[in-house]
Amino acid sequence: MSNIREVSRLAGVSTATVSRALRNPELVSKESQRKVMEAVERLNYRPNMLARNFRSERSYSIVILTPSIASPFYSRVTRGVELAAQNRGYSVLLGDTRDSLRREDEYIELVETRLADGIIQFRPSEENSEIARRANFPIVYACGCADTALPSVRIDNIEAARSIVNYFLSLGHRRIATICGQPENPHSIDRLVGYRRALQEADVTLDPELIVHADDYSMASGVKAGSRIARLNDLPTALFCMNDEIAIGAIQSLKRAGFSVPEDISVAGFDNIDFARHYDPPLTTIDQPSDEIGQIACNMLIDQIEGRPNSQNNVILDYDLIVRASSGTVRPD
Amino acid sequence: MSNIREVSRLAGVSTATVSRALRNPELVSKESQRKVMEAVERLNYRPNMLARNFRSERSYSIVILTPSIASPFYSRVTRGVELAAQNRGYSVLLGDTRDSLRREDEYIELVETRLADGIIQFRPSEENSEIARRANFPIVYACGCADTALPSVRIDNIEAARSIVNYFLSLGHRRIATICGQPENPHSIDRLVGYRRALQEADVTLDPELIVHADDYSMASGVKAGSRIARLNDLPTALFCMNDEIAIGAIQSLKRAGFSVPEDISVAGFDNIDFARHYDPPLTTIDQPSDEIGQIACNMLIDQIEGRPNSQNNVILDYDLIVRASSGTVRPD
Repeated sequence: MSNIREVSRLAGVSTATVSRALRNPELVSKESQRKVMEAVERLNYRPNMLARNFRSERSYSIVILTPSIASPFYSRVTRGVELAAQNRGYSVLLGDTRDSLRREDEYIELVETRLADGIIQFRPSEENSEIARRANFPIVYACGCADTALPSVRIDNIEAARSIVNYFLSLGHRRIATICGQPENPHSIDRLVGYRRALQEADVTLDPELIVHADDYSMASGVKAGSRIARLNDLPTALFCMNDEIAIGAIQSLKRAGFSVPEDISVAGFDNIDFARHYDPPLTTIDQPSDEIGQIACNMLIDQIEGRPNSQNNVILDYDLIVRASSGTVRPD
Repeated sequence: MSNIREVSRLAGVSTATVSRALRNPELVSKESQRKVMEAVERLNYRPNMLARNFRSERSYSIVILTPSIASPFYSRVTRGVELAAQNRGYSVLLGDTRDSLRREDEYIELVETRLADGIIQFRPSEENSEIARRANFPIVYACGCADTALPSVRIDNIEAARSIVNYFLSLGHRRIATICGQPENPHSIDRLVGYRRALQEADVTLDPELIVHADDYSMASGVKAGSRIARLNDLPTALFCMNDEIAIGAIQSLKRAGFSVPEDISVAGFDNIDFARHYDPPLTTIDQPSDEIGQIACNMLIDQIEGRPNSQNNVILDYDLIVRASSGTVRPD
């Protein structure tokens, strides 16, 4: 690749003029500007941005910490982050933590050694995280939960869960089960609060047998948890799963056990991943504005990095209840 | 964050000694080394790696160019890249090109301006790409096709498609349809070669009506293409879809039209994404070693960057035919 001296020689101007023409074109004459751009074009010159980064002590990149890049929901949030970052001249470094705190720490190190300017954290939990202890750098939580002191973008998980259970109640369901993620997962905690609240408000007695915890938010865990639901002596008439993957796995188990969805049992998920509408039956779910969450989180982070004040510290976005064929009125006894 | 002068002051040694203790500990005394590490620990000092990058003219990061980060298959390849990169001290920059050449060019620019040391290209096509013209930088093609002069890691798409059609033939099928991606897509081209080859070898006359092109590799396009198959006067008894998303969409359309899978028509996909096993019916498909493709591509790229010779320029990995409930013997007439 050619260097700035070759550009200066071909354009017949000093290297300082080349540098100014590229960075502050208003400081050079139109004629010099034209000569420099012609030489840049002919030599296919690209400035070495490592020098800019070194001088400015900035990397112009941000890290996303995601529990799994292969998760359909998080990868859509990532897409939103990437779009906003590229628009503002930043790159996105991929921190696939695989839910490992050790891997998370290695990515925090990137910010501490100046290789990234800030972090977007997808993991909803701050538990055991080094971030809370070391967070003297720009950070935004995306998709998190209530009670984060740090800047965040999310939906109201409690209200969203409550609206699904209220929808089931409006169809006549009273025996409504739920499959949560891990008990300590903040999404599970918030969504369980919403589930309980809706039932209490409708004077439906909580049956602890109807609250099942999956091992994690995967389809395989949904299959396992769904077979526990299928083995209950008295099958619930409705089932709220705390993400779409769990719902898909649970429906697979219910069908295998000989039950029809929604005739025997209505099922709903959460997130509205692309597969939800193409499942059999298509899945009733909560649509999270995943792209928008990513874009807003990214812009909030870059504002922090560039020292602009954030107008809002915690942004709460709207969700939609999407009703599809996996849910219907309660079956007659 | 603390700086090297504070470390030097606390440790009671020169900044040059601090620098040596961190980079070449064998050059300093054990006592100095101990003092420096204690001071580093107490001050939570992290060296500014932007200086290292500037001096070495290296960014220690690589870019992946992916047509869609939200694609379940590409996101698993990405996970493999990320794992290998982190093991070798490199970061992965996310280039979500959304199949746009303009966005792709902006990421190529990162390498040309030294903000990345090389590129892993997921897009199988070199058509209209700036890479071929400008590729004076390290690059590896992952998941590509035959006929790439540049280093690549992939499976044999022609053979994999041929093995699916041979499997259908072994079950007694003769009227076998296929849904391809876009006609110019190299995956479609290779897999169509394999489809034709298997039929020719079995002396089955090709029926052009049975070759349908989807708009792209999405489920929505699979729905559209599947409804064209469902409307054929003489329904084929088997259908090979060139990825799992198309297969899922096509099955949805076939079911809506009143057909049973596999009783009326056997269906197979390609890739073995996580959803394939959880669909109804679970999907027969080709399992690509996605994680391994990503890891090998990443290691080949870093070898190029670091000037080590690659023992192989084009790596071809094994695939597996996974038989699940979406396919069965031909229906009796």
